Amino acid sequence: MAGEDRFVRRLLAELPPSSRVLLGPGDDAAVVEADGTWVVTTDMLVEGVDFLPGEGPEAIGRRAMAVNLSDLAAMGARPEFFLLSVGFPAARGETYPLSIVRGALSRATPLSAALAGGDLSHAPMTVVSVALWGRPEKEPIRRSGARAGDALFLSGHPGRAAAGLRLARARAEGRPAARNLSAAAEAELLAAYLDPEPRVALGLKLAREDEATAAIDVSDGLGIDAGRLAEASGVRLVLDAERIPIAPALADFARLESLDPLDLALAGGDDYELLFTVPAERADRIPAEGPDGEALSRVGRAEDGRGAAIRTEAGDREVAGLGHDHLRAAAP
Amino acid sequence: MAGEDRFVRRLLAELPPSSRVLLGPGDDAAVVEADGTWVVTTDMLVEGVDFLPGEGPEAIGRRAMAVNLSDLAAMGARPEFFLLSVGFPAARGETYPLSIVRGALSRATPLSAALAGGDLSHAPMTVVSVALWGRPEKEPIRRSGARAGDALFLSGHPGRAAAGLRLARARAEGRPAARNLSAAAEAELLAAYLDPEPRVALGLKLAREDEATAAIDVSDGLGIDAGRLAEASGVRLVLDAERIPIAPALADFARLESLDPLDLALAGGDDYELLFTVPAERADRIPAEGPDGEALSRVGRAEDGRGAAIRTEAGDREVAGLGHDHLRAAAP
Repeated sequence: MAGEDRFVRRLLAELPPSSRVLLGPGDDAAVVEADGTWVVTTDMLVEGVDFLPGEGPEAIGRRAMAVNLSDLAAMGARPEFFLLSVGFPAARGETYPLSIVRGALSRATPLSAALAGGDLSHAPMTVVSVALWGRPEKEPIRRSGARAGDALFLSGHPGRAAAGLRLARARAEGRPAARNLSAAAEAELLAAYLDPEPRVALGLKLAREDEATAAIDVSDGLGIDAGRLAEASGVRLVLDAERIPIAPALADFARLESLDPLDLALAGGDDYELLFTVPAERADRIPAEGPDGEALSRVGRAEDGRGAAIRTEAGDREVAGLGHDHLRAAAP
Repeated sequence: MAGEDRFVRRLLAELPPSSRVLLGPGDDAAVVEADGTWVVTTDMLVEGVDFLPGEGPEAIGRRAMAVNLSDLAAMGARPEFFLLSVGFPAARGETYPLSIVRGALSRATPLSAALAGGDLSHAPMTVVSVALWGRPEKEPIRRSGARAGDALFLSGHPGRAAAGLRLARARAEGRPAARNLSAAAEAELLAAYLDPEPRVALGLKLAREDEATAAIDVSDGLGIDAGRLAEASGVRLVLDAERIPIAPALADFARLESLDPLDLALAGGDDYELLFTVPAERADRIPAEGPDGEALSRVGRAEDGRGAAIRTEAGDREVAGLGHDHLRAAAP
């Protein structure tokens, strides 16, 4: 079990009960009763840990917002309000945090999510914390609803962000990486890391049409997040190796770097795609593309058992340990 | 104008309109329409900036919660839910953030405020961000409602936290400070800094009884926060020097350190007391003590004009520049 999950478990054991927290820590976001029902989430991004040192402030703001929007997307909730706190080095000047806010707004405003407030502090490096809440489109989609026999789907192309991070880091350090990678492929991979697209429209559609029995956003890695969904639902998730969609740009990058693209897809993190289960008899209702044109791939199924595995001709390999553990990992 | 205030002004000019954010950035907390009305706030605390390096995790959690509770108190809102994000050095171990949460809960649970979620990240030093929301007891008390002629009140004894910070810093650095200060006085001043008491019950009472025309929590300094209330209301606030309540422990500390206790009271910050205005004809309804036994002092009045001043026999001295500007100040 990842350290963060262990932390949540320890925390839950200590929390006083509240009849108004319908769903507390441990899922992508919390659900609180408030006349109407609100879905709330928060994520903190730290420079040098959750993003590269010296990344531009608008990009930081966009990512901080995207990460939180992705949590709401995984619940099938429509974002409505957010709070934004920024810590930053004084030497970066007063426009710097404003640019962070602008970046966050550039993601939030098209979705009609409004900034309600925030806070500023000086800090040795940049820290951005967003709290976001919204309305469930219908019933919130939890991690815990998958049943044995369900089909498993994934949006987008996992591993591209992990490749983009390697490219961005090499570039920042003046090292060559994946020489001969086409400019278009490099741009695609960098964008996947630097400016992830939260799957808000897909999450809302899944909730509205009651398609998904469970969902999680793949933020820490397909392996670890599949393991989390499996554990919450009390099932085993089996991913078929040949069904994991590998983007051509990722395949090119992996070949040039002598890496296995599947490893990047399983352990990479930062994808912000949705992994969701659908009853097998409704699996053919899931189209090949989501509402924003992202691929929707049937990548496996839920079975009786525990854990998460990738299935190849050679057998099953456990993958629930593959990814970014917030209480274990070092800087990117 | 403090840099943070200037930032908010610049930000407001760029924010897209939202009919559901009834009160956005610029007050102690935001008010959002959500079937019922919610008051929301967020504050981020950074180690070495907003609290001393190496402070115990439970104390950090208590303070992070208290600072946010104080914002809601200044609006007359009853806290209900919060989100808590923690960044921390990996070497401090997994129990460290749990202790921070415990500290926050020790403040929140007695007020029936429930933890709804949170996030963890590693970071070079500890950063805690809380997002808190609650229900207005009646109409939210804004900063902008003071009118010329109103009486000005202050809870508690300002400046004690500033003295406590100096004692704590000296102690951490192994320097002597205020030798011969009694143990009781030292404990009182340290507690004022290390474990401030948010005036939640007072804020609720003021809102419930429609007593206050405006309120602000004194977090950055009595001078600067009086200036903020004055500017938001379009009045001049005049503090009478002889009416500022100086705790005997603060007077002792100041004497031993050759400081003016009034300077500490005006510029110190970290007090988390409530400064509020009341129509002059209702001023005698304010009792000498608030609901938690804290002193309530009539410290001055609102007049026509602008700014905030301390009035002595020698005349008026402007004080709106005295305090902690988040976009200017260095570490404590």
